Amino acid sequence: MGLHEDMILIGDSALAAARQLALLGSRKKKSILLAMADEIDAQKDAILAANAKDMDEAKNAGLSQAMLDRLLLTNGRLGNVTKGLRAVADLKDPIGTRISRWIRPNGLEIVKRRVPIGVIGIIYESRPNVTADTAGLCIKTSNVVILRGGKEAMNTNAALVAALTAGGEKKGLPQNAIQLIRTPDRDAVRELVQMEGRVDLVIPRGGEALIRAVTEKARVPVIKHYKGVCHVYIDESANLDMALKIAENAKCQRPGVCNAMETILVHESVAAEFLPKLAAQLGEKNVEMRGDAAARAIVPGMKEAVEDDWYAEYLDLILAVRVVPSVQAAVEHINKYGSRHSDAIVAEADGAVKAFTARVDSATVYVNASTRFTDGGEFGMGAEIGISTDKLHARGPMGLEELTTYKYIIHGNGQVRE
Amino acid sequence: MGLHEDMILIGDSALAAARQLALLGSRKKKSILLAMADEIDAQKDAILAANAKDMDEAKNAGLSQAMLDRLLLTNGRLGNVTKGLRAVADLKDPIGTRISRWIRPNGLEIVKRRVPIGVIGIIYESRPNVTADTAGLCIKTSNVVILRGGKEAMNTNAALVAALTAGGEKKGLPQNAIQLIRTPDRDAVRELVQMEGRVDLVIPRGGEALIRAVTEKARVPVIKHYKGVCHVYIDESANLDMALKIAENAKCQRPGVCNAMETILVHESVAAEFLPKLAAQLGEKNVEMRGDAAARAIVPGMKEAVEDDWYAEYLDLILAVRVVPSVQAAVEHINKYGSRHSDAIVAEADGAVKAFTARVDSATVYVNASTRFTDGGEFGMGAEIGISTDKLHARGPMGLEELTTYKYIIHGNGQVRE
Repeated sequence: MGLHEDMILIGDSALAAARQLALLGSRKKKSILLAMADEIDAQKDAILAANAKDMDEAKNAGLSQAMLDRLLLTNGRLGNVTKGLRAVADLKDPIGTRISRWIRPNGLEIVKRRVPIGVIGIIYESRPNVTADTAGLCIKTSNVVILRGGKEAMNTNAALVAALTAGGEKKGLPQNAIQLIRTPDRDAVRELVQMEGRVDLVIPRGGEALIRAVTEKARVPVIKHYKGVCHVYIDESANLDMALKIAENAKCQRPGVCNAMETILVHESVAAEFLPKLAAQLGEKNVEMRGDAAARAIVPGMKEAVEDDWYAEYLDLILAVRVVPSVQAAVEHINKYGSRHSDAIVAEADGAVKAFTARVDSATVYVNASTRFTDGGEFGMGAEIGISTDKLHARGPMGLEELTTYKYIIHGNGQVRE
Repeated sequence: MGLHEDMILIGDSALAAARQLALLGSRKKKSILLAMADEIDAQKDAILAANAKDMDEAKNAGLSQAMLDRLLLTNGRLGNVTKGLRAVADLKDPIGTRISRWIRPNGLEIVKRRVPIGVIGIIYESRPNVTADTAGLCIKTSNVVILRGGKEAMNTNAALVAALTAGGEKKGLPQNAIQLIRTPDRDAVRELVQMEGRVDLVIPRGGEALIRAVTEKARVPVIKHYKGVCHVYIDESANLDMALKIAENAKCQRPGVCNAMETILVHESVAAEFLPKLAAQLGEKNVEMRGDAAARAIVPGMKEAVEDDWYAEYLDLILAVRVVPSVQAAVEHINKYGSRHSDAIVAEADGAVKAFTARVDSATVYVNASTRFTDGGEFGMGAEIGISTDKLHARGPMGLEELTTYKYIIHGNGQVRE
């Protein structure tokens, strides 16, 4: 049997599982999720042994230290995985909740109710915690999940899925509700994203190259989590002490993540006062600043920013700096070079705040706060499957509700259309 | 300049228009929509002359009578177009409305607010009323629209867009907010659906072949409006008089539309009583019935249904008939052969109703009512851009709200992440 037939089998069994999973109640699903966590605890040794095997192979293959660190599972990391599953088990179940209800003049009662999406494909790279995290979020929302992890993590992922499945099935998880694509064949991804009618959504979690490759091949809907080129704009009306604090936090608190600041825009009337203070403060944190001519005229020795810097997601202690003549110019810069992810204004003037929040076309727009809050947990969603840079279906942090769709259930007493 | 560069120019100017359009208030947009309608009235003669030219060419090219009828504009049809625009002008504007608001323990105020999607591409076939209808819905929701109509309607569409644009611009519609792709080059569609970053959504409106072609090439999100293979299931607990009335309406009231019934499923315990009555009643309306063995045993002379009949969207006075042993079997048939569009149960028993509504995975599920109500107008949306058979972003009738997305606006007073 070829790859195509194998994938069709996966899709068909996933669809069958989705029909059963959709019928489970909230309490049942909670007990399934807790059993999944318990079984990971019970099979801890086998999972860590599988991970050790992956680590050995990865070292022999010469993977970088950063890649090895991502791949590594420890007792502590596995503890976070089960803690995460138990936290998801405790969240409120969105499935079945009524979104709206109205009655038409002809007496038809229309109820719009939240239902699962169905079958969700997750394509991701090395981190094995994604396997359990996404499986937990999908089962919580009654979605079947088809996982396609990195080949370097195959043994770990297989051990995790075995535990998740064995635990869940003890409490009534339908067979095939969590599936792992085991073939190393790269064409499996193409097959997965072209299974219209069997796969309802694909979420690629990884670098830009992965997401672009998936998007180009996909025939099923894809929700993209592209990079975060996030900005902080310091308005002429800004409280500059607050601005310094926010800028440092947005750049330095965790520079390697998508909601960290990559470019700071400073209004020309406060640049002379603000930029030297910023340079001193970020200098202590070893941040390299790359500025336009106006910024470099104020801070001697600052490196020069070239056009590519405005587009850059450094994910590092590097900051592009630009002096702008107005809030409007800041907005234009952000809408041109940004990635519609997270952008902030520091300002006291209402006019500037309104212009900024109305015109910046990003998923999350902050006023006097750090961009680092774009996160399902920080938003109070309890969990997140990612941060969408798309505008369709879900934008910004994706929690449980974003893993649902709806259907209309309409009750009548014999109505026909005239 | 080549096609690619032409399309990039269209995309760039659309994006620029979208930024301006997003800032217009509801009252302004209402006056723009009314001016668009007025200008169509004013330019009626020019529009009808352009349509006459298209009709001549289409007749010379040997288009079918059905195609010619779709292409034809008359005084009356143009009157419906302007009436539609004025009705949309009067609808409540969803843009800017608050979807939700909450305050985090750290004091951050998170507001989720409805915003335009941005730039929407509409790919459609001959009907020129789609040009004005979709332009009206998009402008109402502050979305820029790029139209790609059928080449046989090019003169008509150009005249309509000229009037819509001239009228709108009198009241402040941004330049390039309504654009028509004028090249007959078929590659323009491929370019359009691959303009990530410039085009936010594409909606193909037309036959299955068009939608499949668009989906295969697309890199931007697509909302699909596939066929409607709609079912009515007559339960053993059904009121059979009501069942007859609903079945006749769902099949005959307008057989050529996507929410018409294509297959009827009848519980075996009422088949002997119900099917002869149905055959008599639909026979009067010249409906051809194609049944399984059980149905043909009850109604002598009924044609035989083959496997393909269960998948068929006849859009005609033909009905597939199947006798099923249970509500569960009906659900399985619908989930296997249906198109997730509109399906109905006729039943008095609560258990059957609950099983059906919980298990049928369709956008709209009816209890004791005709499938023909799946329609933006019948739902009370005031207007519709189509009926989505997708599950992502929008499902079922798409009205104004479904042409919006959201962004989070977050107010703080200096919050940084720990």
